[in-house]
Amino acid sequence: MENTLVELQYALDTFYFLVCGALVMWMAAGFTMLEAGLVRAKNTTEILTKNVALYATSCIMYFVCGYAIMYGGEYFLTGIEGSGYTPGAEDNATYAPSADFFFQVVFVATAMSIVSGAVAERMKLWAFLAFAVVMTGVIYPMEGSWTWGGNDVFGLYNLGELGFLDFAGSGIVHMAGAAAALSGVLFLGARKGKYGVNGSVNAIPGANLPMATLGTFILWMGWFGFNGGSVLATASVDSANSVAMVFLNTNAAAATGLVAALIVARLLFGKADLTMALNGALAGLVAITAGPDTPTAAEASLIGAVGGILVVFSILALDKAKIDDPVGAISVHGVVGLFGLMVVPMTNGDSSFTGQLIGAATIFGWVFIASSVVWLTLKVIIGIRVSEEEEYEGVDLSECGMEAYPEFTGK
Amino acid sequence: MENTLVELQYALDTFYFLVCGALVMWMAAGFTMLEAGLVRAKNTTEILTKNVALYATSCIMYFVCGYAIMYGGEYFLTGIEGSGYTPGAEDNATYAPSADFFFQVVFVATAMSIVSGAVAERMKLWAFLAFAVVMTGVIYPMEGSWTWGGNDVFGLYNLGELGFLDFAGSGIVHMAGAAAALSGVLFLGARKGKYGVNGSVNAIPGANLPMATLGTFILWMGWFGFNGGSVLATASVDSANSVAMVFLNTNAAAATGLVAALIVARLLFGKADLTMALNGALAGLVAITAGPDTPTAAEASLIGAVGGILVVFSILALDKAKIDDPVGAISVHGVVGLFGLMVVPMTNGDSSFTGQLIGAATIFGWVFIASSVVWLTLKVIIGIRVSEEEEYEGVDLSECGMEAYPEFTGK
Amino acid sequence: MENTLVELQYALDTFYFLVCGALVMWMAAGFTMLEAGLVRAKNTTEILTKNVALYATSCIMYFVCGYAIMYGGEYFLTGIEGSGYTPGAEDNATYAPSADFFFQVVFVATAMSIVSGAVAERMKLWAFLAFAVVMTGVIYPMEGSWTWGGNDVFGLYNLGELGFLDFAGSGIVHMAGAAAALSGVLFLGARKGKYGVNGSVNAIPGANLPMATLGTFILWMGWFGFNGGSVLATASVDSANSVAMVFLNTNAAAATGLVAALIVARLLFGKADLTMALNGALAGLVAITAGPDTPTAAEASLIGAVGGILVVFSILALDKAKIDDPVGAISVHGVVGLFGLMVVPMTNGDSSFTGQLIGAATIFGWVFIASSVVWLTLKVIIGIRVSEEEEYEGVDLSECGMEAYPEFTGK
Repeated sequence: MENTLVELQYALDTFYFLVCGALVMWMAAGFTMLEAGLVRAKNTTEILTKNVALYATSCIMYFVCGYAIMYGGEYFLTGIEGSGYTPGAEDNATYAPSADFFFQVVFVATAMSIVSGAVAERMKLWAFLAFAVVMTGVIYPMEGSWTWGGNDVFGLYNLGELGFLDFAGSGIVHMAGAAAALSGVLFLGARKGKYGVNGSVNAIPGANLPMATLGTFILWMGWFGFNGGSVLATASVDSANSVAMVFLNTNAAAATGLVAALIVARLLFGKADLTMALNGALAGLVAITAGPDTPTAAEASLIGAVGGILVVFSILALDKAKIDDPVGAISVHGVVGLFGLMVVPMTNGDSSFTGQLIGAATIFGWVFIASSVVWLTLKVIIGIRVSEEEEYEGVDLSECGMEAYPEFTGK
Repeated sequence: MENTLVELQYALDTFYFLVCGALVMWMAAGFTMLEAGLVRAKNTTEILTKNVALYATSCIMYFVCGYAIMYGGEYFLTGIEGSGYTPGAEDNATYAPSADFFFQVVFVATAMSIVSGAVAERMKLWAFLAFAVVMTGVIYPMEGSWTWGGNDVFGLYNLGELGFLDFAGSGIVHMAGAAAALSGVLFLGARKGKYGVNGSVNAIPGANLPMATLGTFILWMGWFGFNGGSVLATASVDSANSVAMVFLNTNAAAATGLVAALIVARLLFGKADLTMALNGALAGLVAITAGPDTPTAAEASLIGAVGGILVVFSILALDKAKIDDPVGAISVHGVVGLFGLMVVPMTNGDSSFTGQLIGAATIFGWVFIASSVVWLTLKVIIGIRVSEEEEYEGVDLSECGMEAYPEFTGK
Repeated sequence: MENTLVELQYALDTFYFLVCGALVMWMAAGFTMLEAGLVRAKNTTEILTKNVALYATSCIMYFVCGYAIMYGGEYFLTGIEGSGYTPGAEDNATYAPSADFFFQVVFVATAMSIVSGAVAERMKLWAFLAFAVVMTGVIYPMEGSWTWGGNDVFGLYNLGELGFLDFAGSGIVHMAGAAAALSGVLFLGARKGKYGVNGSVNAIPGANLPMATLGTFILWMGWFGFNGGSVLATASVDSANSVAMVFLNTNAAAATGLVAALIVARLLFGKADLTMALNGALAGLVAITAGPDTPTAAEASLIGAVGGILVVFSILALDKAKIDDPVGAISVHGVVGLFGLMVVPMTNGDSSFTGQLIGAATIFGWVFIASSVVWLTLKVIIGIRVSEEEEYEGVDLSECGMEAYPEFTGK
């Protein structure tokens, strides 16, 4: 009978993990809709194709080598099968190994989704997918292993032991994605017409704001799985309380992030800026992700609000620096991801400011440098930017051979 | 060991509550897509902004004071944290306090979402959000406390003791939202061009019906959490049976509501009217919400069908009375919400027709009067309607400074 | 206490079934968005109406007679209510009867959804719904009963005993839907202008590719419930492991299907064809559905990839045969569904190639012949194809009286 109770716990934890995993998988749809809504009609098919293909690529590469790099060679291919529970055994897992893989694999895709938005409207599709192969198969798993896999950084030091704590991945997932995105944008350059010769910044409005709004709601919903699943268990009073608090805090941070960004944008621009509000919600979510379990609801609300304010100024600052990020991904996931990491020690004594700083620098440094090597290699070998004429005509026709809205744009 | 079984129940109930809460949160996306699809292109950004902002506002205000007003001062801020389970204690909760807050907070947003559709295409955005602050922070929590919080109505009588029963909120959530909406529409007036001088009613078609259809599906799905979660427990045979029956009945009522409205519209207009079919599905859902646990599947189907028929005639009647509700929210949630309340005693002996009538009148009266005070105050102080020119140009440009579909409408 | 453990298992299995059912219900939204995105703007309202109405019709007809035909007369109407668990009883179910009905009913709708895409842009709406009544009330439940209900095929032989195995319905749901679709398309004929007199095939691009992409993501997500729920239990170590493996394999097959189709299309057409990629993902999902529990992840990946390759060639072949299927449903669900059935014996010894072949032939034969009788009857009595003029103008105006995008298409 004792067995049966433990078995039921195993079953509940496994089911919880799968439900959370399905919600994180759903975030891939969220990124896709968000990005498709924020680009121009002529570049929409391509961003859709990139997003579905990067999700599929992430799943394949993480299976081929990523998971084994991140969590150890014993998980190579077959280690993700079978049972995590043996009656009478001492070292039973609390959930099925394949549920763990399923949950982790959808995280990889999230990291990669961040890149596609930033390089939208001018990057070659196949170069992007080639980058995705390396990013999801090697670059992300390497840095993930330093915290969540417990490995030393190049044999030098261990992030966890240094007081680095990143609950669900403000740094490991979001800032990492933004680091790869920033590198890509720097090698790629801005879209034609974005920045005037006299220093002016030209707004390039997205073609379909309901789609972008839907994408934000999908991400918001999926984030419950992203953060809630990162408790890694729910079948006890403590873990159930923790998961519930994580859901509440995640929702609160998104809400205050949205309102804060909406108000700041109103003060700066005089209008209720929808795209800033959406980015504010996402910023609140990214900000709370490094530590959604320890803050009170009031603290989580504050963290989200600061994230929402930060993102507005960050988007303006990047434009001033002529770093062209069509959807604001570097600000949302990079700048606010860093903020999320740095605020953890305020509510969680297991982390330290120094530890967070070293962890952030290590992750950013590795991903930025490794990504730069890959982008540069791709640039030299196959080129990463479409021709000026293709960019003018829209990458949909040159890369995908079909328009996203053939009847709406009056061509 | 006894403890562990109880603890596992606590864990399962908490997880069930969180899953249901996430589904109800998803309804916010459903309302947003439904409303965005049913307004004209030029008013789409504004309705999107209103919806994301009202959801965020609801979450913040319910946290600040709403939850404490509804369920008692002991839940003010910190009462929503910690554990609901103490080993050996007599009065253990069956789920985490933060899971309860998370589930309840998404209900508030539902009530508020109903308003935004009815006042679409002509209301000032910031006046609407100011209303949302009072509605979600005070008006809704007050009336909610009279049934779900067990409070007396202004110290006079107790709705529950009078035989008023509203399982998941046909009245407390849906009709309440519709009462606030009706008040707003009366203060606001109809859209320009909706009603001709000679008594004619001009159809103003929505810009994006796939979006409206998606919104309906999202609401349908989210309603499983809305009604299913309102059983408040699932970790026993009885509660599991009840939750399952609620899922089945909720789905059945939506299906018959849709088909009934489709057929009635076919008989009246000669066409398969998609928007009536969508409203029929929502009407079926609203109708069953006051008592989804006691009817048989056949009874639930009948209740849904009557809801679907009612909504068609109600929409026509409101238009005859020149009450301009662009998405039919007052009919779907108000008229059918009342029907849902009144049909409960037929399958549930714990309620009475008198009790339902008194409850409905109390809720409607309070929300309508309190809302009217707020709308009037806002009208006097900052105005609630945009200028005629802004309405003609579309509120997207004047309120939000950006179009929702800049490339599609050929401007 | 023993009781309570069993009761908790019952509760967990019921909850798992309901969550999976909600995910499958969500697939109805997926089919709707996919099909709405792949037809032309002028036929969008009608395909939306068909899809919402077919879902509702499926729910009603399965309740009225379908479930009783499929699983036995004792379930007629009232058998789906009450409890599946009696303390002390020997033959306790492991979940609530109404949860079983809810899960099964959403499968019916999936089978029917497959038809609507294939007959899009030229079929009369009410003829389609009349077909849906017979398909979901009789044709599908009959063939479903031969495997999942354990009935003999017309009293002749039992598919299960012959070694036929179809875990979640590659054949029983997907190929069955495709058989009905193929029959419909043959009676209906191709859309005007699809095939030139000289044998040319004219591409008719879909109006809204973000919508089609969203639909694919929704289906992908919903498929976790479709396949994962088909384990029929999760509250033990074995079943939890099985559900987890099914989630993982389902995801893996979709991913490889997508990438395989993308690459094949690139080799054939020189472009990254988004619609082929989407169909590739769906093909991967259909291919793994007949047996997602026994393959290793590597085998599942291979099965998905072959599905993705097959679907591209099948779509081309059907066009060569002038079988006009606007969304590729017959290829995705029929051709790949058959492949999915035939590959089962490679990883599951409980099935045999002969058994799979006999099962596939029996299901296809029955559904194709029965459907043909219904289509022919409808053709004779009320006609199934709209007039040439209505087709030219778009079926939205003639059937539904409203356009889907009145402001975008510049009419």
